[in-house]
Amino acid sequence: MVTHGSPAVLALAGGVGGAKLALGLARCLPPGDLVICVNTGDDETFHGLHVSPDLDTMMYTLSGLSNQETGWGVAGDTFTALEMLGKFGVDTWFNLGDRDLATHIRRTQLLAEGKTLSEVTAELNRSLGVLHGVIPMSDDPVKTVLLTDEGELPMQRYFVGRRAEPKVSEVRYLGAETAAAAPGLDDALAKAGMLVLCPSNPYLSLGPILALPGVRQRMRAISGKKVCVSPIVGGDAVKGPAGKIMAELGKQVSCVEIAREYRDICDVLVMDNQDRALASEIEEMGITPLITSTIMDTEEDKISLAREILALAD
Amino acid sequence: MVTHGSPAVLALAGGVGGAKLALGLARCLPPGDLVICVNTGDDETFHGLHVSPDLDTMMYTLSGLSNQETGWGVAGDTFTALEMLGKFGVDTWFNLGDRDLATHIRRTQLLAEGKTLSEVTAELNRSLGVLHGVIPMSDDPVKTVLLTDEGELPMQRYFVGRRAEPKVSEVRYLGAETAAAAPGLDDALAKAGMLVLCPSNPYLSLGPILALPGVRQRMRAISGKKVCVSPIVGGDAVKGPAGKIMAELGKQVSCVEIAREYRDICDVLVMDNQDRALASEIEEMGITPLITSTIMDTEEDKISLAREILALAD
Repeated sequence: MVTHGSPAVLALAGGVGGAKLALGLARCLPPGDLVICVNTGDDETFHGLHVSPDLDTMMYTLSGLSNQETGWGVAGDTFTALEMLGKFGVDTWFNLGDRDLATHIRRTQLLAEGKTLSEVTAELNRSLGVLHGVIPMSDDPVKTVLLTDEGELPMQRYFVGRRAEPKVSEVRYLGAETAAAAPGLDDALAKAGMLVLCPSNPYLSLGPILALPGVRQRMRAISGKKVCVSPIVGGDAVKGPAGKIMAELGKQVSCVEIAREYRDICDVLVMDNQDRALASEIEEMGITPLITSTIMDTEEDKISLAREILALAD
Repeated sequence: MVTHGSPAVLALAGGVGGAKLALGLARCLPPGDLVICVNTGDDETFHGLHVSPDLDTMMYTLSGLSNQETGWGVAGDTFTALEMLGKFGVDTWFNLGDRDLATHIRRTQLLAEGKTLSEVTAELNRSLGVLHGVIPMSDDPVKTVLLTDEGELPMQRYFVGRRAEPKVSEVRYLGAETAAAAPGLDDALAKAGMLVLCPSNPYLSLGPILALPGVRQRMRAISGKKVCVSPIVGGDAVKGPAGKIMAELGKQVSCVEIAREYRDICDVLVMDNQDRALASEIEEMGITPLITSTIMDTEEDKISLAREILALAD
């Protein structure tokens, strides 16, 4: 347990992989020493409700409610309301459980009352006992859109509706150029003594965060250690379409490409034992490789990886 | 089955009792010959969702989805989302099942898209296979408020939140004076060959409809038969607080008071066998009593009562 003298850690995360490491970090750090900045480029309105898939994955993971089998939603959730929505002729391709719907109903209500997404996120997390700072990357809308061989697809339509099957030629973050970093991110960028890029999809999860004006530059300026955990292990993503998209974009599907992607904001690349042979390539880029097990199946795995990362702190 | 030559019937209804008779009427009349105008004075916003309790009771009853034990909601519904909303610190005194929530989510979405409550109601009912015209009394907000010994209470807060326990001194219909009759009501008032006041609470269910500007006068002008079914049987309401409120308002709790209430829009009062002794008082008011069984336990009861009413048509 790192409880004293640890620097304030700013962690960037998207979906399931990011949430796993964030849980490990949360188990090792007191609430005041960790800010988890979460991608909102996938946010969508379904049935008039504001859905923030990555924020919810994070909240459910940290509160112990997450469905670890599916990687989304609440464990043991039912789909009664969605089935009824289907009777009303509504397209129900996006799975929303009954418990999960309550989150979206509450979020939508609080947003309609004039609260910011940051305020709403803090309130929802607190209600579920999550004390660590979980913040959206921005209170302004940013929309991740993929240009594919089936046309332009918003992230959830691509990922859930089309099961990440279309071939991707470009990823765009609509609105990012005018969106402001959330106040909590702004604050964390000023105070952070350590930056952790969780093992999330570089294009669909961390890309939107890094596309916010000034954010990447300010990350470069963080004086403490900047650590990236590769989501690519053994030539593919541990989970999700990151590997497939990298290949489609003509990039090398390896942790070397991850290091290249984050070169300016990465002092240490945490890479899996399986990729040991690539360590020299990482070193050649001036990045320190940390070779360890990055597969986080159990809570112990998550804590163990978080400890190794936190031990890198200056 | 009355299918040819029957006049267009305009039925006014509130909650459970009204929906029972409306179901009977719907079983006897083709869709084009029946318009059911439903109270919306109880409409409330819960968790940011537009809830129309009486419209929903009607829709669930006519579609065969209603929970006949409780009198509200959908049979076999679960309460998973509401339980989760409770975790977010939300007051969950108003029971909303998961299937029921889907109705409110969809209604709220369609209203937010700019549709009127009439249009939304028609769409929801059609989706559930309800072909008879179910219309809200108005597309404008009207709020039934009770002045009680515990202060001013909106209808649902009084009825569900406080289980109709506070003593009522007055019932007000906020907004009724500026609300317009829904287009469907307007149309039905022009065409109706018969008016049926279903056995609903005179103050909380039919009162708001009759408070709409011009509506009562236009009902008076309907040339066909005007029939009222007393919700008061044997000195109390068959269901709900109508009897209690009548007593608190200093009125006689009997079908005679019901006849008095609707004297100007009632040619025939349908009264229960139990109240046979009061028939002469009804006659003295110039109203024809129809003495029959008005308790509608089974679908046969509902159809039977509807047939007797429809047989009164000119």
